[in-house]
Amino acid sequence: MRPSGRAADEMRALSFETGFTKHAEGSVLVSFGDTRVLVTASVEERVPPFLRGKATGWVTAEYSMLPRATHTRGSREAAKGKQSGRTQEIQRLIGRSLRAVTDMAKLGERQIVLDCDVIQADGGTRTAAISGAWVALRIAVDKLMASGAIAEDPLERKVAAVSCGIHKGTPVLDLDYAEDSSADADANFVLIEGGHIAEVQATAEGATYDEEALLRLLRLARLGCDRIFAAQDKAVGR
Amino acid sequence: MRPSGRAADEMRALSFETGFTKHAEGSVLVSFGDTRVLVTASVEERVPPFLRGKATGWVTAEYSMLPRATHTRGSREAAKGKQSGRTQEIQRLIGRSLRAVTDMAKLGERQIVLDCDVIQADGGTRTAAISGAWVALRIAVDKLMASGAIAEDPLERKVAAVSCGIHKGTPVLDLDYAEDSSADADANFVLIEGGHIAEVQATAEGATYDEEALLRLLRLARLGCDRIFAAQDKAVGR
Amino acid sequence: MRPSGRAADEMRALSFETGFTKHAEGSVLVSFGDTRVLVTASVEERVPPFLRGKATGWVTAEYSMLPRATHTRGSREAAKGKQSGRTQEIQRLIGRSLRAVTDMAKLGERQIVLDCDVIQADGGTRTAAISGAWVALRIAVDKLMASGAIAEDPLERKVAAVSCGIHKGTPVLDLDYAEDSSADADANFVLIEGGHIAEVQATAEGATYDEEALLRLLRLARLGCDRIFAAQDKAVGR
Amino acid sequence: MRPSGRAADEMRALSFETGFTKHAEGSVLVSFGDTRVLVTASVEERVPPFLRGKATGWVTAEYSMLPRATHTRGSREAAKGKQSGRTQEIQRLIGRSLRAVTDMAKLGERQIVLDCDVIQADGGTRTAAISGAWVALRIAVDKLMASGAIAEDPLERKVAAVSCGIHKGTPVLDLDYAEDSSADADANFVLIEGGHIAEVQATAEGATYDEEALLRLLRLARLGCDRIFAAQDKAVGR
Amino acid sequence: MRPSGRAADEMRALSFETGFTKHAEGSVLVSFGDTRVLVTASVEERVPPFLRGKATGWVTAEYSMLPRATHTRGSREAAKGKQSGRTQEIQRLIGRSLRAVTDMAKLGERQIVLDCDVIQADGGTRTAAISGAWVALRIAVDKLMASGAIAEDPLERKVAAVSCGIHKGTPVLDLDYAEDSSADADANFVLIEGGHIAEVQATAEGATYDEEALLRLLRLARLGCDRIFAAQDKAVGR
Amino acid sequence: MRPSGRAADEMRALSFETGFTKHAEGSVLVSFGDTRVLVTASVEERVPPFLRGKATGWVTAEYSMLPRATHTRGSREAAKGKQSGRTQEIQRLIGRSLRAVTDMAKLGERQIVLDCDVIQADGGTRTAAISGAWVALRIAVDKLMASGAIAEDPLERKVAAVSCGIHKGTPVLDLDYAEDSSADADANFVLIEGGHIAEVQATAEGATYDEEALLRLLRLARLGCDRIFAAQDKAVGR
Repeated sequence: MRPSGRAADEMRALSFETGFTKHAEGSVLVSFGDTRVLVTASVEERVPPFLRGKATGWVTAEYSMLPRATHTRGSREAAKGKQSGRTQEIQRLIGRSLRAVTDMAKLGERQIVLDCDVIQADGGTRTAAISGAWVALRIAVDKLMASGAIAEDPLERKVAAVSCGIHKGTPVLDLDYAEDSSADADANFVLIEGGHIAEVQATAEGATYDEEALLRLLRLARLGCDRIFAAQDKAVGR
Repeated sequence: MRPSGRAADEMRALSFETGFTKHAEGSVLVSFGDTRVLVTASVEERVPPFLRGKATGWVTAEYSMLPRATHTRGSREAAKGKQSGRTQEIQRLIGRSLRAVTDMAKLGERQIVLDCDVIQADGGTRTAAISGAWVALRIAVDKLMASGAIAEDPLERKVAAVSCGIHKGTPVLDLDYAEDSSADADANFVLIEGGHIAEVQATAEGATYDEEALLRLLRLARLGCDRIFAAQDKAVGR
Repeated sequence: MRPSGRAADEMRALSFETGFTKHAEGSVLVSFGDTRVLVTASVEERVPPFLRGKATGWVTAEYSMLPRATHTRGSREAAKGKQSGRTQEIQRLIGRSLRAVTDMAKLGERQIVLDCDVIQADGGTRTAAISGAWVALRIAVDKLMASGAIAEDPLERKVAAVSCGIHKGTPVLDLDYAEDSSADADANFVLIEGGHIAEVQATAEGATYDEEALLRLLRLARLGCDRIFAAQDKAVGR
Repeated sequence: MRPSGRAADEMRALSFETGFTKHAEGSVLVSFGDTRVLVTASVEERVPPFLRGKATGWVTAEYSMLPRATHTRGSREAAKGKQSGRTQEIQRLIGRSLRAVTDMAKLGERQIVLDCDVIQADGGTRTAAISGAWVALRIAVDKLMASGAIAEDPLERKVAAVSCGIHKGTPVLDLDYAEDSSADADANFVLIEGGHIAEVQATAEGATYDEEALLRLLRLARLGCDRIFAAQDKAVGR
Repeated sequence: MRPSGRAADEMRALSFETGFTKHAEGSVLVSFGDTRVLVTASVEERVPPFLRGKATGWVTAEYSMLPRATHTRGSREAAKGKQSGRTQEIQRLIGRSLRAVTDMAKLGERQIVLDCDVIQADGGTRTAAISGAWVALRIAVDKLMASGAIAEDPLERKVAAVSCGIHKGTPVLDLDYAEDSSADADANFVLIEGGHIAEVQATAEGATYDEEALLRLLRLARLGCDRIFAAQDKAVGR
Repeated sequence: MRPSGRAADEMRALSFETGFTKHAEGSVLVSFGDTRVLVTASVEERVPPFLRGKATGWVTAEYSMLPRATHTRGSREAAKGKQSGRTQEIQRLIGRSLRAVTDMAKLGERQIVLDCDVIQADGGTRTAAISGAWVALRIAVDKLMASGAIAEDPLERKVAAVSCGIHKGTPVLDLDYAEDSSADADANFVLIEGGHIAEVQATAEGATYDEEALLRLLRLARLGCDRIFAAQDKAVGR
């Protein structure tokens, strides 16, 4: 039995509240249960130095957790003067995941920055951030296309992410904090619609696992991402 | 005529949405029109080094703006590795304002940290933060009293803040961004219920002003803070 | 009775020792009693990035306290690797105050940096710094005009600052350290000759105060700044 | 055909040169072809703050690349004043991998730090570092056991790592730089002897891949790690 | 002929103005010609961590140049967030020089910090700082002895420093900026009364020099330091 | 008797292993006994900002010690976020020493960076680094000349360095760690072939020394550098 009473292959309540803030070109408050992440997409008419003059765009991400998004207050990274290794690892993952589905040449020489700020954490903040980032990016790209700035759609496929893990011996989908902190093994899967894998990050916490277990988690992740893809479509009105 | 069509002494729509996040001992999403600030109060059973062993508590604040809270994206302070002078100035002001109404001896040897994170900015973020911080602090203190951790109420009076300014020659209350960016002079007033001043920060931007103007702004601030005090009372159920 | 034996509206001995150092375009050692601040004005033939190519100048300030300017040694900000919030707040105030009396277009595309280094502190370092910065700026601008680099005087009015406070129930002018550390309320006033206010920063430390008290402090500040304006005139030979 | 002429399941020349430096409790220069990493294990008779007084030990890792380990010189992280996200991600992975095979209670209240410094890079620096770190750790633990500081062996199993990828459509083992920089997908596998997975980090660079491809890479990794386990045994004389 | 018209073995006007600031236990404004350095000695009743509980004291130094001490304004180290290599090199030299004449056991478990802040620079700031630091330290130690905190004098000998160099082929004493910036070779000598060398730092800038030249500079330094020792004696009233 | 049993004027075993790494334009592992430093020379077709457009080159150095190069592990500077004063002092010395023998105009508008990473420390790391840096620089310059990028040899003379000290009353050559940590006085000499001095840094640690002692150390240094010059010649095949 899972702490939340969910079935092994059952996701938490999932929602994408678009237009949560008004200034950004794309904005969404994504909820995976009690995990809530505000994602904004900001279009900037410039690219990082290494891409200047190459007629290609860029998509990047920044991630942060509000100090009291968690059970006990964490110190503010801006006050400490540096981002933790965990923060950097996560924002690099978000950026790679979104770049995996974006055609940079079609984007043109501009950059889209995805800011993922965790308002409340209950496990799975990075997977919620990736799933929400696609929605914010889609909205921003739609505006660029509507305005004529972009001719061809650079965002042909959807990407989503979900965490799975082995909890008390059972593979389960979409870990919440109670499961995440006691799982024997957990894995974050970033999947692209159509059955492709963008990224797998699987770690055995207390125990180790084998090929069979990895495959069972991958199959659960497929189920979960299919649900997320459907919710993403609905959120952006497709 | 104000850009928003408001009367000179008219505040924007004001709301305090308490319990916006679940982990913090006090939590509120405060809105002054389109300015929205999430304030959480975190109780920590320790005090800063300079107060250890003195049987007295502390209240402090941290302030941050999400990168895309504004019209154009600002760089993330955690990524730059330091907080701007503006950020530090504001969080020092918030802390002083709340300490002005807190009896530290009654709080006991513990610290309450008020995290003020601006979700969306449209002028007046620091005054919304102060006004909301009182609500979050009140809720956290009520929990400490309910649990028996504190015997006597350390928070006897309310504090609120509002900005006023001279816009096209007319003193107006509660500046929004359109007014703030073109005001000749503006002032932030932090007032305590009962007619007392906790803090005044008045600056002439393009022009200078005189005693008469300062007094007219102070009177507008009184009107505004009375409205905020009433809304604070309602938010915390008093 | 004030700790120093001064009357309520009596300032400390005031002096501006110009030419204290030889390299800067403007240099003055300003003393408000035992508070001594060295201010230099450095002319740089470039402007900050946001002003490039706009045919306008800039005036900015930096502030620092020598580690042993105070009763007990403070740690050196360069060694700690960052400026405190207090330092940044003060240097922002100094810069704004001087910009309030400078016509940037007449200054031309150049920057004047006002370095305010506190040699000895006894209360009122920021107000001494602002008052001295005007002298250093005036000297530097006079040199630019004498050399023909500037055609029209960009510095039409004087600016000065003084702190006032309520000490044991009495409003007093020009707080020294003994008063500053025990005042119920204090305020820094930055005034422009002719009766205008550039900035007011009023804070109730232990108590709160009201409109009446704020006005009484403002009137004391006027008296004080009139004395400073006279001393500034004499220092620059006008 | 691979750029190096190797067969798809062929590893590069592999060597562990133990005792490369004399001060560390464990020291090894590990080579995976032209990739050379110096790993030292330092025993410290203290643990991080969060473990004090818990009768348990800790294993952690730090990673760095010498500025000219690569084709073009990279800037030195100590001179830039911060470690890159890549560096932090890698050193976190190395630490987790070694902790997965260490019994912290048997280690006692002490810490072993694994410093992994890349002398020369030609692809696979993190996997060489993990594989070498086990050797350095084994040597250091053997000394602790020989001296009687530790009674029971805390390091019961071996851990090794290797990268695999899909290069021009073919799954290949142990990518060198030429392959790594042009692979469609690559994955780092951290495996524990006996067929268990400690960690999988799989990323599709230009393309995406599917379950089938992931499994083929995992099987190649098994082959590679078996070769590394044998070489580790030989290096430590077992 | 030297730019200043001085003879080859002639020092600049030398002065030690003691009691320049009032808070420090020792304070002196030292002038070597137009080079002026404010040195304060601060007594702290604690020692650095590595000396705790060892019944021994410590003497350390910090050095800084005010931004406009020089011909053109240098950026402020506190604003840049780090001390330059030059600053650190100089403050390490000052600390070593004073420790060379201090008996740490007699000082007792306390630290004296020597803050050397360059008000105006015209060559030789580090040598002026060392020479002045001895004066400030002497005054502070005298106070500790007068108060009974220290029983035996820990400062038995004087230390002084001077720079010498080869200017247009001639060895000269006490380089000013005009000479320093065009010298073929220069050396800083830290000497102890009685003919001993505490430190030599000799550098050939454009040319190289030989044993003979080094000796000639050392003899000039002896002359110079004898003059400084006499002035130090007079400054502290011995 | 020296701890190592060496004669007073006997150097440790000396070796230069060129081509130790493959990517750098020049690379050498230099050993002075158990002290081993990897030096690489990297040619960059750009110069620092202050030299741009001046048709002149630059030579600079960076120095670092691997955390466990020493008896006890030192913390990693990249992790601490800043380079120590000692590190900066040493890398400035290395850069100055190599620039003393390089004709920057002949080098052309390019920079050569000498990275000196201490693999193992046993005294004399900075002198080994300087001596090795000349070898790496010579190899890199030879490649530039062979490729035709440089027409005339910018590196006309050799430079080498060695430390000498007074150990138990006897002047000795090439201090190892056991001597260095107990020497009464020590000095680092940077000499240029032909009898010239590039730099002397002499410090009395516990005692002080006189002119006679300084000269005796200088003569030992001459002997030592002559041996190093011969080994350098051999290493680069001249």
